[in-house]
Amino acid sequence: MNEISNKRPISNYKFVGQATPRPDGVDKVTGRARYGDDMIVPGMLYAKILRSPHAHAQILSIDTSKAEALKGVKAVMTGADIPTHPLAQPPYPPIIQDFHDLGLNIMARDKALYDGHAVAAVAATSDAIAREALKLIAVDYEVLPFVLDPYKAAQPDAPVLHDDQYTDGTGPDTDKPSNVFRVLGGERGDLEAGFADADVVIERTFTSEPVHQGYIEPMACLATTSEDGGVELWTSTQGHFVARTLLSKLLKMEMAKVWVTASEIGGGFGGKTTLYAEPIAVILSQKTGRPVRATLTRPEVFRATGPAAGSYCRIKMGVKNDGTITAGEADIWYQAGAFKGSPVGRAVETFFSPYNIPNTRAAAYDVCVNRPKVAAYRAPGAPMATFAAEGVLNELAERIGMDPVEIRLKNAVKEGDESLKGHKHGRIGLIEVLEEVKAHPHYKAAIGANQGRGFAVGYWLHGGGLSSASVILQDDGTVSVATGNPDIGGSRSSMRAMAAEELGLDVELVKPIIADTGSVPYSYQTAGSRTTYATGMAVINAARDVIDKLRDIAARKWEIATEDVRWDSGHALPPDARKGDIEPLSLKELAAMATKMGGAVAGHSEINATGQGAAFCAQLVDVEIDPETGFTATKRYTIFQDVGRAISPDYVEGQMQGGAVQGIGWALNEEYIYDAKGCLQNTGFLDYRMPVASDVPMIDTVIVEVPNPNHPYGVRGVGEPPLVSAPAAVANAVENAVGKPMSNLPLSPPKVLKAIEEVAAGN
Amino acid sequence: MNEISNKRPISNYKFVGQATPRPDGVDKVTGRARYGDDMIVPGMLYAKILRSPHAHAQILSIDTSKAEALKGVKAVMTGADIPTHPLAQPPYPPIIQDFHDLGLNIMARDKALYDGHAVAAVAATSDAIAREALKLIAVDYEVLPFVLDPYKAAQPDAPVLHDDQYTDGTGPDTDKPSNVFRVLGGERGDLEAGFADADVVIERTFTSEPVHQGYIEPMACLATTSEDGGVELWTSTQGHFVARTLLSKLLKMEMAKVWVTASEIGGGFGGKTTLYAEPIAVILSQKTGRPVRATLTRPEVFRATGPAAGSYCRIKMGVKNDGTITAGEADIWYQAGAFKGSPVGRAVETFFSPYNIPNTRAAAYDVCVNRPKVAAYRAPGAPMATFAAEGVLNELAERIGMDPVEIRLKNAVKEGDESLKGHKHGRIGLIEVLEEVKAHPHYKAAIGANQGRGFAVGYWLHGGGLSSASVILQDDGTVSVATGNPDIGGSRSSMRAMAAEELGLDVELVKPIIADTGSVPYSYQTAGSRTTYATGMAVINAARDVIDKLRDIAARKWEIATEDVRWDSGHALPPDARKGDIEPLSLKELAAMATKMGGAVAGHSEINATGQGAAFCAQLVDVEIDPETGFTATKRYTIFQDVGRAISPDYVEGQMQGGAVQGIGWALNEEYIYDAKGCLQNTGFLDYRMPVASDVPMIDTVIVEVPNPNHPYGVRGVGEPPLVSAPAAVANAVENAVGKPMSNLPLSPPKVLKAIEEVAAGN
Repeated sequence: MNEISNKRPISNYKFVGQATPRPDGVDKVTGRARYGDDMIVPGMLYAKILRSPHAHAQILSIDTSKAEALKGVKAVMTGADIPTHPLAQPPYPPIIQDFHDLGLNIMARDKALYDGHAVAAVAATSDAIAREALKLIAVDYEVLPFVLDPYKAAQPDAPVLHDDQYTDGTGPDTDKPSNVFRVLGGERGDLEAGFADADVVIERTFTSEPVHQGYIEPMACLATTSEDGGVELWTSTQGHFVARTLLSKLLKMEMAKVWVTASEIGGGFGGKTTLYAEPIAVILSQKTGRPVRATLTRPEVFRATGPAAGSYCRIKMGVKNDGTITAGEADIWYQAGAFKGSPVGRAVETFFSPYNIPNTRAAAYDVCVNRPKVAAYRAPGAPMATFAAEGVLNELAERIGMDPVEIRLKNAVKEGDESLKGHKHGRIGLIEVLEEVKAHPHYKAAIGANQGRGFAVGYWLHGGGLSSASVILQDDGTVSVATGNPDIGGSRSSMRAMAAEELGLDVELVKPIIADTGSVPYSYQTAGSRTTYATGMAVINAARDVIDKLRDIAARKWEIATEDVRWDSGHALPPDARKGDIEPLSLKELAAMATKMGGAVAGHSEINATGQGAAFCAQLVDVEIDPETGFTATKRYTIFQDVGRAISPDYVEGQMQGGAVQGIGWALNEEYIYDAKGCLQNTGFLDYRMPVASDVPMIDTVIVEVPNPNHPYGVRGVGEPPLVSAPAAVANAVENAVGKPMSNLPLSPPKVLKAIEEVAAGN
Repeated sequence: MNEISNKRPISNYKFVGQATPRPDGVDKVTGRARYGDDMIVPGMLYAKILRSPHAHAQILSIDTSKAEALKGVKAVMTGADIPTHPLAQPPYPPIIQDFHDLGLNIMARDKALYDGHAVAAVAATSDAIAREALKLIAVDYEVLPFVLDPYKAAQPDAPVLHDDQYTDGTGPDTDKPSNVFRVLGGERGDLEAGFADADVVIERTFTSEPVHQGYIEPMACLATTSEDGGVELWTSTQGHFVARTLLSKLLKMEMAKVWVTASEIGGGFGGKTTLYAEPIAVILSQKTGRPVRATLTRPEVFRATGPAAGSYCRIKMGVKNDGTITAGEADIWYQAGAFKGSPVGRAVETFFSPYNIPNTRAAAYDVCVNRPKVAAYRAPGAPMATFAAEGVLNELAERIGMDPVEIRLKNAVKEGDESLKGHKHGRIGLIEVLEEVKAHPHYKAAIGANQGRGFAVGYWLHGGGLSSASVILQDDGTVSVATGNPDIGGSRSSMRAMAAEELGLDVELVKPIIADTGSVPYSYQTAGSRTTYATGMAVINAARDVIDKLRDIAARKWEIATEDVRWDSGHALPPDARKGDIEPLSLKELAAMATKMGGAVAGHSEINATGQGAAFCAQLVDVEIDPETGFTATKRYTIFQDVGRAISPDYVEGQMQGGAVQGIGWALNEEYIYDAKGCLQNTGFLDYRMPVASDVPMIDTVIVEVPNPNHPYGVRGVGEPPLVSAPAAVANAVENAVGKPMSNLPLSPPKVLKAIEEVAAGN
């Protein structure tokens, strides 16, 4: 950990706010943690998936007979094996897609919609036989014209992916099939008057490319099914309850019969919030009566699992010379991939929300293109919109000669203000974050030749929702904390710390457990930076339930009223009047007594958490450009974030650093390279270049703590805000170094070199 | 199912009392159910155990160096690796043994105490290498005199197993080391006066041999440990919570860090209530840092896992000519095996408890011998005592010319009566059971040449205790019922039926889950016929908790008070005054609404169940003797049992039939054959002859239902009573066929032939 801001509230917490040994640390560094591919059961078959080599093609026929005849092949499936679903809205709005599209994305039925789209799958007694069998499946395709760019795909003459898809009424063409499913927007004030009021108005167009979540562990799962309808699924997922819901609805099964266990997860970043191979493994298991394991390869992950949407954005903002932002207007086209569902709502919320701008309009278009369907990626939809809005704001500040932090302080939202989509802020910490930036040595530090400094602010409204927890007291006084949230970024540690703090028990005696979907009640997935907030609140409630039960035991032992028993630092205490007369009872003593006084002690909580609110993250970055190659090196990086309360500050710091690094990759390097036929060329980490440790400096963190009053410990979401402003900050630094606006991510060496040459040429 | 008695109470239950498809049926018949040996994880090692070839020997030295040097061997352990424990009483009285003895039984330290006693173990990369390595371990033994018979072992001149074991003050020699650890007894009335009052007094001596539980699945487990103290254990056990407690206490670990999952279990019958290979797998995993699987072979199961105690019993009873039993006196010596802990208390409770006998004394001796330590076996301690008491009672009835059922009816205990150990009976059904016997066609049916009919009654006081359950409502209206009890005889079915009945939901929509020790609160093991009673009560409580929460949702929806909402047949109903005005809401509708009204819905219960009470079981059996070979064939068998309420009558019938069959084996065939050196000779099912289906007739069952008022559905324990009286009934039938008392089990062909010859010779 680097610095902890002086905004950190003074507290007497013993475990909350402390860095402690990682609950999952040893198992991960010893290779003992079991990921999706680490489960083996007797009789298991291996699944492999055949994928379309075309960006867009009619499937005229599939002949699986030769594959079926291969010795060792136990079953072959095609899209016809996935139940069809009428178009219908899912019950859980966030992330859960329409089941019609979900089924078609998992396996194409009549049309392959992108290079890599699954068209068939086999289950065989070995991985090698399964791979061999794929070669024996004959698919007759009629290749169709394709479109990859969202803005082009939104035009009337573009090839249309779905003949049966009309817009939902918000799009441009409601009377004929369209790639534009939806336009979401928001508006307030009088735009025309706002721009008229401005002294400076800037309009620019920004683009960004799809980027992959880049988790280290490819998707992997193992399905065992039974003739009586039972399904057991082991899978690498950010939410096994959501996987259970999706799977049971997609395959029309009863939820209680679909028993899902989350494997350890090797990264998700939003990308493991939907289904890919799971239904295929389940269907192949049902066909064969045997367990089936399906593990994707890295090329399959790149070709067929959701990246973040690429974007095309037109944006216009105006300021007065005193720095007041008078108006903002933005339109963004998101490439949803082959099926609708890009994060349009989040984009609209993102553009102008850090600032009080009286006159704004934002619109986001959800556009299908012949690419893999996008999935959530850490603050879905926000980094691209922030890249545009913060880019223009920085340029405006420069034009009026105002400090970039000051212009933001002048317009910053605070408690009581309302976002464009109508979220009314509670206590938020944008001003505190900006003050920390101003006070930080990095902000005024000198920069060298060929260097530039960038700055940007990001806004993110977190998720809350359904969470459950059981806090189980063992009779030796140790504790299990069972929740249904996979740990993608430290939730084991934060759950443990909060339970320990409540109970007054050393964290080492508290074991966080990620329980399966049969054993504990529903928790929504680990996504939306929600887990430490929402599931944490359930854990706190459940721990307090345990304390109430222990107070009751002490009361019965002491023959006094339960309400007269206090709980402090792991002990039941008698009322002051009885001090000396009655000895306190420790949690351990009470645990040993409990089973004789009515049964085991456990606390439970099932909640639908609200009040999570927003968080802000500012980033300051210095880059150095190699004028000969256009290569950009990140030299210094400081990230400032209001986390409400850092329950596990070492993990919080890791989240901030990780978000910054993913933003560096997004800004400088990562892009999908398609050939002329619409096929993805860079399907591995060698060609799809994500930053590694040697590519980045140590990322300094400033943890700002403006407690969220709606959470007992003041928690805000932590995971997503660091990515929101990172591409914007890095791009701004490159602009600053190069000396001209840079609007098209990634700012890869050829683009930077071209810009350097343009500047040199006076353009 | 055969017959359901007319004592079956009339009920409107829809699922309780119905035979339904088995929740685990398909997985078991397809071979898909995962037993102890069916778990494989990456990097797993194989453990094998070296065992003493001597009945009693000092271990002078163990040289493991050659084994350690074998390629593929990753670790070798000896008894020195198991932590030592001071002699201390465990916290859970039933079954949990003293940890000192437990450690020594798992692996010998200074002395090997029986043929098969573990002395070392290896972990290697293959089973073959592990077996090879065992041959390379050199153990230097000093062979000592041994004793196998409990009565002989109780004599002052017997070889003593434990130099540091004195009796606990109840035994004969409190001032010098002794094989007799404990004598438990009870007494009431005036024995001398009682016998003086009798018209007929009979005194006999009975013996029985140790018999094995004979489960099909040998013990198997897989342990994964971590350097941070974490343990994950997959094991075939009757109680993973008890395994967790034992393991954590034995190896001095924190309970919450020991995470135990119960595999499917291939039979237990009491034999899987303690630890055998688990600590060995854990220690070898700790030594190697790798997962270790340990699976016993059948010979290891016979040589080193707990049989039921063999016994030596002197018993004396007196009756008046009118059938009144005036006095009973019994002493029984149980061979505990190498460590104290035979079920002496249960024996004392068993002898005379079905009857009101004013003057009684019973004592049971817990005697160590050079045999494997006994473990619980289905009604531990009761069948041997019942064999003696019922044998004498049958002989007394014959002597006074009274019908064996009538003599029992005359003396039968009923509500308000007290057992010898002071248990005061609630509503019990012995009289109802005996009336059923009298009314049954079998009772008066003719028997043929060389045939005999036997009859006996058994008594069993069930277990209650700690149980927990969570009933979890999924948002499609299906339900998970999570408990911590492995299903050894149908508890999945009974939990499901009770939850379905409470909720008014079809059983097919209720999924019973056996959850791990981290995810749900404590449940004591599946033993003592306690699960359907105690855990079932927790399930009912938890289901009612769900209903209360659903009533609350309906109340909020309807804007009325929760107490005005009734629950009936799966629906929330408005008060009568609002009928027509308000439509009922089904469980499914409420489930869909629930998450929007405060969170997921789940009910929880943690209890310490009491009130389980006693049950009685009568058995009527016809055998036919082959006069030339002495072979006994069981020709007809009817078993009558008060089950309180048969929640899943098909399983109840199976329990009754299974107990009878195990009793047939105990009575006629099963015995351990030791050679002159004290080594076990019959270590497989070919030589240790248990009855198979072709050996027995269809066992007819008469389910008597005298509801237990302490349980919502009237449940009594079911699993154990059928074995209590089975050996007595079968032996009585043989006596009847042969024409003379038969007091030494098993009544194998040579013994029967000898008796036939003695009768023919007039002896």
